[in-house]
Amino acid sequence: MLGSTGSIGRQTLDVVRHLPQRFRIAGLAAGNNVSLLAEQVEEFRPDFVFCSAPDTEQRRALGRLPANCRVLPLEEMASHRDVDMVVVATSGKVGLDAVLAAVRAGKQVALANKEALVMAGGIIMREAGENGAQVLPVDSEHSAVWQCLRGESGGSVRRIILTASGGPFRGYSAARLQEVDVEQALRHPSWTMGRKVTIDSATLMNKGLEVIEAHWLFSVPVSSIRVLVHPQSIIHSMVEFADGSLKAQLSWPDMRLPIQYALSYPERLPNDSLPRLDWDGIGRFDFERPDYTRFPCLRLGIEAGEKGGTYPAALCAADEVAVALFLEGRIRFVDIAGVVEKVLAKHCSVAQPALEDIMAADGWAREAARALAGGSN
Amino acid sequence: MLGSTGSIGRQTLDVVRHLPQRFRIAGLAAGNNVSLLAEQVEEFRPDFVFCSAPDTEQRRALGRLPANCRVLPLEEMASHRDVDMVVVATSGKVGLDAVLAAVRAGKQVALANKEALVMAGGIIMREAGENGAQVLPVDSEHSAVWQCLRGESGGSVRRIILTASGGPFRGYSAARLQEVDVEQALRHPSWTMGRKVTIDSATLMNKGLEVIEAHWLFSVPVSSIRVLVHPQSIIHSMVEFADGSLKAQLSWPDMRLPIQYALSYPERLPNDSLPRLDWDGIGRFDFERPDYTRFPCLRLGIEAGEKGGTYPAALCAADEVAVALFLEGRIRFVDIAGVVEKVLAKHCSVAQPALEDIMAADGWAREAARALAGGSN
Repeated sequence: MLGSTGSIGRQTLDVVRHLPQRFRIAGLAAGNNVSLLAEQVEEFRPDFVFCSAPDTEQRRALGRLPANCRVLPLEEMASHRDVDMVVVATSGKVGLDAVLAAVRAGKQVALANKEALVMAGGIIMREAGENGAQVLPVDSEHSAVWQCLRGESGGSVRRIILTASGGPFRGYSAARLQEVDVEQALRHPSWTMGRKVTIDSATLMNKGLEVIEAHWLFSVPVSSIRVLVHPQSIIHSMVEFADGSLKAQLSWPDMRLPIQYALSYPERLPNDSLPRLDWDGIGRFDFERPDYTRFPCLRLGIEAGEKGGTYPAALCAADEVAVALFLEGRIRFVDIAGVVEKVLAKHCSVAQPALEDIMAADGWAREAARALAGGSN
Repeated sequence: MLGSTGSIGRQTLDVVRHLPQRFRIAGLAAGNNVSLLAEQVEEFRPDFVFCSAPDTEQRRALGRLPANCRVLPLEEMASHRDVDMVVVATSGKVGLDAVLAAVRAGKQVALANKEALVMAGGIIMREAGENGAQVLPVDSEHSAVWQCLRGESGGSVRRIILTASGGPFRGYSAARLQEVDVEQALRHPSWTMGRKVTIDSATLMNKGLEVIEAHWLFSVPVSSIRVLVHPQSIIHSMVEFADGSLKAQLSWPDMRLPIQYALSYPERLPNDSLPRLDWDGIGRFDFERPDYTRFPCLRLGIEAGEKGGTYPAALCAADEVAVALFLEGRIRFVDIAGVVEKVLAKHCSVAQPALEDIMAADGWAREAARALAGGSN
């Protein structure tokens, strides 16, 4: 479990907690939240642990490890022979390295890290194919598509319809969006997530990144992936087939369900701790087209996916910097899209990029985004 | 194609018409509409034909058969060695005999006849199992469930949710239902169907029968099948799994899609003549609980399914008589449920019935229903 102290990590451990006969945690890895990591080590008794925090006090907290638990670097953990499945919920570049290590070792990789597939989907899927690894989605939308595709032939897919809650500012006018502050942007109507993902959900950049992920996960061209706003967040996505039939996956919005599905696939395990959809409380589902004008990040994400090459990596990097600048109060909410758009406009893409090209694009885009904001951060 | 001149029969031939490379009509069978049957014979050039009309003039119309086309009785056609699949769209007892002949001959049976499974589901499914036959649903709701179950394990099904349009009288008060006339009852909001099925859709008896069908088709107890009103008729049904995840099948309401799905299964064939769901035209889906008080036929259907034995056969027969009496103007719309309820209250059910028991229950219930209405029809 890489990224065990984050939102997805904690929910993954909750699933494991309720199904102790079925799953055992081989290793736990986290970033700076060493006290929570220490608690998790105490409860789940992993064989391996890793903490990226450099601080000596944090190292000391982890020093009190139970017997038979030892510190192991992230990539070694992800490729260890005793590990069947690697859940990757660390964000950013660290997650990408872990994913690559895991697919090269032929593991099942339950993937909650968005950047990995967006930046390097071509490389990851090729390496997975060559090494017998499986990349299993954990995102609710991609889990929905994956569930709808069960038993279906890939060739019969006509279109993927990714649903979007529309975020907290769905009904906001362009003028009102200008005034959005950090606190408002961190309040998501359907999901509780990390700060970066929550802002991406508010700008709809998140949905653009998901389009690119879906493209790689399901081998479907970006032009055959459509976004549909569905504010209730009960239908998590749909697949339209060649004959005009569609299948949708529905559930109460709770990340523990797609997490459990990835862990237990192909089985579906009963788990009483998961909420059940109560139709008596559901009067209606709404649907609307996304507004690409008020939410330009969605358009930018889809365009980067269509262009391919290193555009998605540059998109990811520019967005990460722009979101950080917004969270620091240095740019406005509506400026996030502007920063990303300007960076992409200047980007020189490399077609069919190697990992070095992707890393170079990432580094360049971060610099470019910071320079645009006029800061040195 | 048994029942080729009815609504399902004509739509089945339309599917075949658009996919001539894929399907060939081996035989056509119909009832009284001999002129349309003759046209169909002319167009599709079957090897066999059958017409149940006794009238000599009709016989003469069919006498002008193309070369290599000969008259064959229904059951012989359904079990002929040159036939791969039997589409059963004849209604009533004739359909049941054809289904039994086809399953005993180990055919694939695309089933649009409701009565067969409702009356004799236990026998049909047992005979199908013993003879390597497959019963494939054609009803939009059961096709939806079947599509949702693709690739899933039967043991992971927690509940089936059959959707219902609610019929043309969904919003009617009990008082207003008293006034409903035949013309109003024959106007269905979503589907164009035969007269009997249209009235059953207005009383919601149709949905009760579908619960019993789903019970047999998918080996799910009646108590695990729920009805949910969804007036837009886009979600055709859903399956809830053990982990709390649901899958739904959606499409524009057009019977040619489930018909084609049954014909081409497990493939999904592109067919440009089938309508495509246009999300720009869909603003919302509504859901509500069915009202078992205003629509007692739904409750009666589910109760008969729960009781089992020959109750479903008696239900079917009593309903058929009651609907005929209503269409003849001899009882009111709201009296249909009353007739059925009184017949069922007096019925002596046989557990695990043989075909004779079912036929006896059918005959008894018809008599009882006619006697209740005070007529001799």
